[in-house]
Amino acid sequence: MESLRVALRERTYPIHIGAALVGNPALYAPHLTRSVAIVTNEAVAAHYLSVVQGTVASAGARVTVAKIPDGEHAKAWDTVDAVCDRLLADGCGRDTLIVALGGGVVGDLAGFVAAVYQRGIPFLQVPTTLLAQVDSSVGGKTAINHARGKNMIGAFHQPVAVIADVATLQTLPERELRAGLAEVIKHGAALDAEFFGWLEANIGRLLARDPQALVHAVRRSCALKAGIVAADERETGVRALLNFGHTFGHAIEAAAGYGAWLHGEAVAAGMVMAAELSRREAGLSEEEAERLRALVQQAGLPVNGPPIDPERLVELMAVDKKAAGGKVRFVVLNALGSAQIRSGMPDTSVRAAILAASQ
Amino acid sequence: MESLRVALRERTYPIHIGAALVGNPALYAPHLTRSVAIVTNEAVAAHYLSVVQGTVASAGARVTVAKIPDGEHAKAWDTVDAVCDRLLADGCGRDTLIVALGGGVVGDLAGFVAAVYQRGIPFLQVPTTLLAQVDSSVGGKTAINHARGKNMIGAFHQPVAVIADVATLQTLPERELRAGLAEVIKHGAALDAEFFGWLEANIGRLLARDPQALVHAVRRSCALKAGIVAADERETGVRALLNFGHTFGHAIEAAAGYGAWLHGEAVAAGMVMAAELSRREAGLSEEEAERLRALVQQAGLPVNGPPIDPERLVELMAVDKKAAGGKVRFVVLNALGSAQIRSGMPDTSVRAAILAASQ
Repeated sequence: MESLRVALRERTYPIHIGAALVGNPALYAPHLTRSVAIVTNEAVAAHYLSVVQGTVASAGARVTVAKIPDGEHAKAWDTVDAVCDRLLADGCGRDTLIVALGGGVVGDLAGFVAAVYQRGIPFLQVPTTLLAQVDSSVGGKTAINHARGKNMIGAFHQPVAVIADVATLQTLPERELRAGLAEVIKHGAALDAEFFGWLEANIGRLLARDPQALVHAVRRSCALKAGIVAADERETGVRALLNFGHTFGHAIEAAAGYGAWLHGEAVAAGMVMAAELSRREAGLSEEEAERLRALVQQAGLPVNGPPIDPERLVELMAVDKKAAGGKVRFVVLNALGSAQIRSGMPDTSVRAAILAASQ
Repeated sequence: MESLRVALRERTYPIHIGAALVGNPALYAPHLTRSVAIVTNEAVAAHYLSVVQGTVASAGARVTVAKIPDGEHAKAWDTVDAVCDRLLADGCGRDTLIVALGGGVVGDLAGFVAAVYQRGIPFLQVPTTLLAQVDSSVGGKTAINHARGKNMIGAFHQPVAVIADVATLQTLPERELRAGLAEVIKHGAALDAEFFGWLEANIGRLLARDPQALVHAVRRSCALKAGIVAADERETGVRALLNFGHTFGHAIEAAAGYGAWLHGEAVAAGMVMAAELSRREAGLSEEEAERLRALVQQAGLPVNGPPIDPERLVELMAVDKKAAGGKVRFVVLNALGSAQIRSGMPDTSVRAAILAASQ
C-alpha cells in the first residue's frame, strides 16, 4: 500500500492506494464514529457492500445503508432528499460518517449530501472506478446536476480520507476502465511528460489490469492532481489546468446527449482536439500531438468527436461560457507535460481543431 | 451608522447598523462584481427592491431579481431549484454576488443558494426583520427544511457583509417585531446581564421603534453573537449557548404545528421554561427567573407554552435529540448573563419546568 497526502491545512487528508484495501479496518479506524452511513448503488453493493459494512460494524459503528440508482441521472435533488430521509429516519447526526462506496456518481452525490446534511458532516471515499480513483477522489468537488447544466449545484467538501483499492478495478466494465484512463492520460499530457512516457510504455499492462501498474498510475495521477489542488483549492487559478480536453469534452458530451458518451470518452476526443489547437496556437510539435493521439487510440478511446456539425460544438462551448460567466478558456500545451490556460483563441483555429478530430 | 466585524479569519465580515442604509452605495461598493442577483419576496420587494436594485445598478452591476414565496414553506428545494434556474438563465457565474433582501427565510434560502450555486458564490445580507438583524445575520448558518425536520439541510456560508437598516423595521408587522425581541432578550439573558438591564429599562422604546434604541439593541446583539461565533464557527461547543430557550422552543413550534407560533414566540415561552429549569437545577435565583419572565411579558411575548400535554413536548425533545444524534442538551442560567450547556437534566425537573409555564 502507498499513501499520499492532499495538503489543505486543516482539511489535509490521506489517500491510500493498493490492492485489497476495502476490508482493512486500520484504514477506517481513525475516522470512525458511533454511526456510519454507507452510500452506494446496487451494482457496487453486490461486490463490496458486505465487506465494507462488516469492517466498520466490527469496529463498533452502527451502520446505515442508503442505495442510490445507478447512472448520472442519480445526481439529482430527489436522490439527495432520499438519502437525507434515510439518514434522518435512522437518527444519523452531525457526528455520522458518510462512506461513499462507488464511482464518480456515488462520490459526487454522497459528498454533496455530506456537505449539506445538518450543515455538513464528514465523509470518506472508497472509489471503485478508475475515474473516481484518479479524479474525483482528489479535490473535494461534490455536485448534483441542474436541468440547465451538469454539476451546477454543489460544494467544495473535502473527504477525511480516500481508500483507493485497485482490486475493485478487476470487476470494472472494460469501457469504464478505458474512460478512466482518459483522465490518467490527461494528467500526464498536461502536467508530467515523464509520466506520459511511462503511460506510453505501460498502456498494455494497464489495459490488462496489472495491479502494480494500476497502483502506479493511480498514485501518480493523485499526486499530480493533489499538487494542483493544494495550490488552488477552489479553482480560482491554476486548478483549471486540470481541465485539459474538457472545454471540447463538455461540448461533445452535450452534443451527443448526456450518457451517450462517457465523460472519459468525451475528454479523450477533446484532448485530441485540444492538441490540434495547441499545435496551431501554442507551439506544440506535430510529433507530440501525434503521440497524444496515438496513446488515446492505444487506450481504446475515441480520437474523433461524434458525427455532429462542428458549429454545434462551437455553440455549446459558448453556452458553457455563458453559464460560467466568463470567456471560453482553453487549456493548451506548449509541450507534453506543460499546460497553460488561454482565452481568446481564434475561432478559425478552434473550428480547425474540431474538424481535425471529426468523423 | 455603527459597524462591527465578525472575526472569522479569511471569512471576516462587517455588519453595518444604522438608519436609511439600504440605499447607501458605499456599503455595497466593496463587494460588487459585474453581476448581482437580488433574492427577495413580494412583501419586502414592495418596500425596498427598487432602492436596492437602483443602488447596485447605478454602480454598474447587471441585476437579476429572483422572488421567492413568503413564509417558512419557501425554505424548500423547489425554491432553491427555481432561484438557481433564474440565475443560470441569466448567465450568473461564479463571480455573481447574491444580495439577500428580506427576513430570516430569505436569508436562510438565499444563503443556501449562495453556498451551493456553482459550488459557492458570495452573498451579502440586507436583513429587513429584527429577527434576521439580530440572529441570522451573524454566523453564516444557511438552511432549508426537510420533511423530517427544520433546517436539516444547509451549510455554513458566511456573508461578505451585512447591512442592517433599522429603518426597515418601521414597516415590520407588530407581531414580528416582538418575535425579534425574543432573540434580543435571549442574548441579554444568556450572555450579558448589563444588556439585560438595559433591555428592562428600554423595552418601551424598542416597542415604539425608537431608531436609536433599535440600533443599540441590534448592535449589542450582533456583538454578543459575533463573539460566540468567532470562538466556535461550526457549533462544536460554546456556540450552543445561543440555544438558550431553544430546546423547549423547538418542541413548542413542532407541537403547535410549524407556523402557528413564530419562532421568536416559541423561544420566548421556551426561555421561561428554561429559567424554571435553571432555578431548579443550576442555581438561578427566583428573583432573576421572575425578571426574565416579566421582560418577556412586557415585550408582548408568550410566557406560557401552547395548551398541549407536557408529555408531548418531552417526546418532541427526544425526537429532536435523536435527529441531532446525541443527548438532549439544555442551556441553563446560573444567573442572568451567565449560561452553561448541560445534558442529563432530571426528567422530573424538565416536566416541572414545562408545567410551570403551561396554560
